[in-house]
Amino acid sequence: MDTFKVTFLPVKAEVEVENGTTVMEAAIEAGIELEGPCGGKGTCGKCRVKLIGENSEEFVLACRTTVSKNLMVEIPHLEVSLHRKSELTQSELDFDINPGIKKVYLELDKPSLEDQSPDATRLWRALSKTGSFSDLDNLNIRIDVLRTLHQSLRQDDFKVTATVANGEVIKVEAGDVSRQLFGLAVDIGTTTVVASLVDLGTGETLATASATNTQNIFGADVIARIEHVMNDDRGLEHLNKRVVGVINRLLAKFAQAVEISPEEILQVAVVGNTTMSHLFLGLDPTYLASSPFIPVSAHLVRAEAKDLGLEIFAHAPVYMLPNIAGYVGADTVGVILSTGVHKQTGIRLAVDIGTNGEIVLAAFGKLWTCSTAAGPAFEGAQIQFGMRAATGAIEKVKIDKDVHLSIIGNAPAKGICGSGLMDIVSELVKEGIVDESGRMLSREQAVHLPQALQMRLDHNAVYGNHFILAANPGSEPVVITQKDVRELQLAKAAIYAGIEILLKEAGLRANDLDQVLLAGAFGSYIDKRSALALGLLPPVAPDKIISVGNAAGAGAKLALLSRHLRAEAEDLARRVTHVELSTRQDFQEFFMKAIGFQSEGVDF
Amino acid sequence: MDTFKVTFLPVKAEVEVENGTTVMEAAIEAGIELEGPCGGKGTCGKCRVKLIGENSEEFVLACRTTVSKNLMVEIPHLEVSLHRKSELTQSELDFDINPGIKKVYLELDKPSLEDQSPDATRLWRALSKTGSFSDLDNLNIRIDVLRTLHQSLRQDDFKVTATVANGEVIKVEAGDVSRQLFGLAVDIGTTTVVASLVDLGTGETLATASATNTQNIFGADVIARIEHVMNDDRGLEHLNKRVVGVINRLLAKFAQAVEISPEEILQVAVVGNTTMSHLFLGLDPTYLASSPFIPVSAHLVRAEAKDLGLEIFAHAPVYMLPNIAGYVGADTVGVILSTGVHKQTGIRLAVDIGTNGEIVLAAFGKLWTCSTAAGPAFEGAQIQFGMRAATGAIEKVKIDKDVHLSIIGNAPAKGICGSGLMDIVSELVKEGIVDESGRMLSREQAVHLPQALQMRLDHNAVYGNHFILAANPGSEPVVITQKDVRELQLAKAAIYAGIEILLKEAGLRANDLDQVLLAGAFGSYIDKRSALALGLLPPVAPDKIISVGNAAGAGAKLALLSRHLRAEAEDLARRVTHVELSTRQDFQEFFMKAIGFQSEGVDF
Repeated sequence: MDTFKVTFLPVKAEVEVENGTTVMEAAIEAGIELEGPCGGKGTCGKCRVKLIGENSEEFVLACRTTVSKNLMVEIPHLEVSLHRKSELTQSELDFDINPGIKKVYLELDKPSLEDQSPDATRLWRALSKTGSFSDLDNLNIRIDVLRTLHQSLRQDDFKVTATVANGEVIKVEAGDVSRQLFGLAVDIGTTTVVASLVDLGTGETLATASATNTQNIFGADVIARIEHVMNDDRGLEHLNKRVVGVINRLLAKFAQAVEISPEEILQVAVVGNTTMSHLFLGLDPTYLASSPFIPVSAHLVRAEAKDLGLEIFAHAPVYMLPNIAGYVGADTVGVILSTGVHKQTGIRLAVDIGTNGEIVLAAFGKLWTCSTAAGPAFEGAQIQFGMRAATGAIEKVKIDKDVHLSIIGNAPAKGICGSGLMDIVSELVKEGIVDESGRMLSREQAVHLPQALQMRLDHNAVYGNHFILAANPGSEPVVITQKDVRELQLAKAAIYAGIEILLKEAGLRANDLDQVLLAGAFGSYIDKRSALALGLLPPVAPDKIISVGNAAGAGAKLALLSRHLRAEAEDLARRVTHVELSTRQDFQEFFMKAIGFQSEGVDF
Repeated sequence: MDTFKVTFLPVKAEVEVENGTTVMEAAIEAGIELEGPCGGKGTCGKCRVKLIGENSEEFVLACRTTVSKNLMVEIPHLEVSLHRKSELTQSELDFDINPGIKKVYLELDKPSLEDQSPDATRLWRALSKTGSFSDLDNLNIRIDVLRTLHQSLRQDDFKVTATVANGEVIKVEAGDVSRQLFGLAVDIGTTTVVASLVDLGTGETLATASATNTQNIFGADVIARIEHVMNDDRGLEHLNKRVVGVINRLLAKFAQAVEISPEEILQVAVVGNTTMSHLFLGLDPTYLASSPFIPVSAHLVRAEAKDLGLEIFAHAPVYMLPNIAGYVGADTVGVILSTGVHKQTGIRLAVDIGTNGEIVLAAFGKLWTCSTAAGPAFEGAQIQFGMRAATGAIEKVKIDKDVHLSIIGNAPAKGICGSGLMDIVSELVKEGIVDESGRMLSREQAVHLPQALQMRLDHNAVYGNHFILAANPGSEPVVITQKDVRELQLAKAAIYAGIEILLKEAGLRANDLDQVLLAGAFGSYIDKRSALALGLLPPVAPDKIISVGNAAGAGAKLALLSRHLRAEAEDLARRVTHVELSTRQDFQEFFMKAIGFQSEGVDF
């Protein structure tokens, strides 16, 4: 069979592929990241690449273009969003910083004929004088530290900074760089990866950035990703490389934005659902997907950055937080840890809305959790104009005689983020533009509505019935489609039903709840009135609902900053009662009951 | 400048070198091991290689042949000697085997819908049921073990063998392979490297092998090796690669001889002098060689096999025993550990005769040590017909009316090993063939001797005055030369003077000694009467002298088999009093007094 060479620019990666292979497949083979959330259907347009010929250039979709000659392909620069410093949740500040990694500045005794102690002994002696290390007798100095020790000590006249973690000296640097101690907290979502750069001395978050999880070309949800592992010998490698690649891209962004070298990042804590945790660690998730649904590991895992491919200090400890069950992962442990529901009295519900909706109920000193396959609607994926909460995203909507939009960055509308979607649909329901069953009116059926709203209803072959949110002069209008409303219905009904099941398991009802914590993977928060209006949450008084932002990511930050909280995470992951929804008849009943909308809205 | 390509066979290593480079230099550049104990003088003949031309083959000395065209060079197979199982010293058996690495066979609970525990949790549970691990809560499973855990568990129906070391699960294998737990004890001498393959379960030594330390092309002693590091940017790399290469060659020999895969070797303990320890670990010994003589490390060092280039299980812990001072190393710690002089009452002297002679004095619960630059004479190096104690080596000699040889393996004589050399010289002195000053008679001066002995005295341009030990029909006779006698004189005087200094430091005299332990790096032992006759030892009753064989290597074995003894080694290394000889006037006086021979012999 004929093979052809495909060269990817700007990285100059080359790969030989067989005739008929798609450019997307060639990119995967070459380890090149390309977005493609529609999974090769040719509908999302995100895998657009430039074919460079001798005298011409042409834009094509990588997933729909096959290789039939040698090709030169320029791949687009993948987007990374840098966020302003995120707010800290209350409990995030209420603990002692003790990351389990320590940097100390030391002034060593200098060698002389009277003191012929070896370099390592000098270091040891100085470490012991600080009084801040226990069990110094068993402290090991890494071989690579020993190999450069004679230089590190002599570079600045025997003044050095030593880094100690897990009973080992892992780094010795000349001079006083004891303040240069940074860590990375990562929340690997199925759809989006969010990372924060944290000062391990002060606990301060220096920057937060997010990017699409480019595993999405293999499917939008965890099941599709696991299937890729099962169907392709190199599937695990593909998925692992992509998520590691995203994190490395976020790291590069930090290096550029805050001028901290990746080598100064000395510890990492990671959360994510159980599948993401497996794929990040390079563990095979195959047995997760078929009965009896067995993960490889659910304990806290410690590894070195180099073993995971992270482009930071090679021996930086990386902690993957423990999972609870096959479909309730370290991200939920992060939510519990950062909201503190496991330590408080009262009856509390925490709902983390991502591609999966994970729900935690805390009552009487016990914890219950479940996971619902909500889909990525709230994250803007699978939604026609869905996008992350970034500049140009519609984040709040009010409809009266016409539509009033609040857009992030006061820019022209580019799309709709999760909170915007919920606002839009709840407003459309309130105005009767979407009925109880979720059906969107056609313009003909909307003659009773104000003229301005009527004109926004439209129909075409691509979108079907849709409602125009922003008509951008000179470019495509931003719309919400009938299908988008259906996606939201499925998502919100799944979460609602999950909540009902947990309450039932604990022998409780919605009005027993003292607090409902709404967590989302994004900086911009969900409007609690929209959440109630949509029927995402059971009817509770709005003042009991608190938005806590990216609580999973906040949990990763806490685990990064405190080894005691890492131990607490391990402990709580083991004592949560996991409720499996997929086999329960009553879940289906709750789900069907919750799929529609209450057109009169909720009274508050 | 012109460059040429040199290809080394059979490994097919290629290197580009400049016109005029020697073949030896090209081999070093290519990382090819070649012996060359004379250090490039063209005298030892050990770097003989075959130049392969299109129609011809030619043997040349690599150190004397320069490259002036592209060359194809076949290098000889380097010699490895496999020894019979060495005897154990008494104290070697008198301890509990507890290597700090453990293999356990486990039968795990199988997954079911009633027990959806992750694979890692199953393993944990089974480990905890054995009751043989403390602090299981903090046990980490290595990421590479996790990555294959789903397979290891399912390969033999959830029956596995787990290996735990230093608080980590480092290996999980299918089935019961708990008996396959082997370790390597290595004694890195300046001249010879000796390794033993040890069963970590039973403590049994399965095989011992030795080979020349091919660092010798950079000089015969530690100072020359350190100078190479100081003079060549890649010197440390050269020396490190060579010693690691020798150990890997010994490993290959074991694999072949006893059918144990290198992957089954799971722990290593190493001794050697301070310079060898640095070169093996890849630590720069530069500051060891100039005032104030500072080693990089003297503590016990733990590293992983892969970080040191050893071709065994990648994550096998490798322990380099602690050093005492710049020129008293882990080998001396090994001697103390295996002879137990630090724990016994009485006044004991231990002398380890290698390229350096290390001396230990134990008295009143205290320990003194010193190191003398004895040179490699006792190891057969720098001696015209010197060789290791292997087949063909003259190991014992008796001279009366003629010469009576005892040869290892009852083969034709090939050369002289250390114990043979001492026997020969002491017999030559006894018979008056070598006088008090060390001068060898010429045949003319020996007319009073039996005819057979007269005929053995000869002279030629290459050897100078010499004495024929074995006239091999059809090949070169084995002789001892005047220069060989001089080498031995320097060596024995240095050791004698070192002993006197330690006795003086402790306020003792030779007749206070309760025991003198003679340790040598080789399987064949030194004859105590020869040692006394030569004046290597101060006059003590012969029954106080005990040969203990390779005590340094035995110490490595003990450290391999017991973590308690590793801790003991670290402790004793810190409390030894090191006596520096190089700056002492009285050492020179003792040395000059000891350089001659007592022609009447010692009375015993």
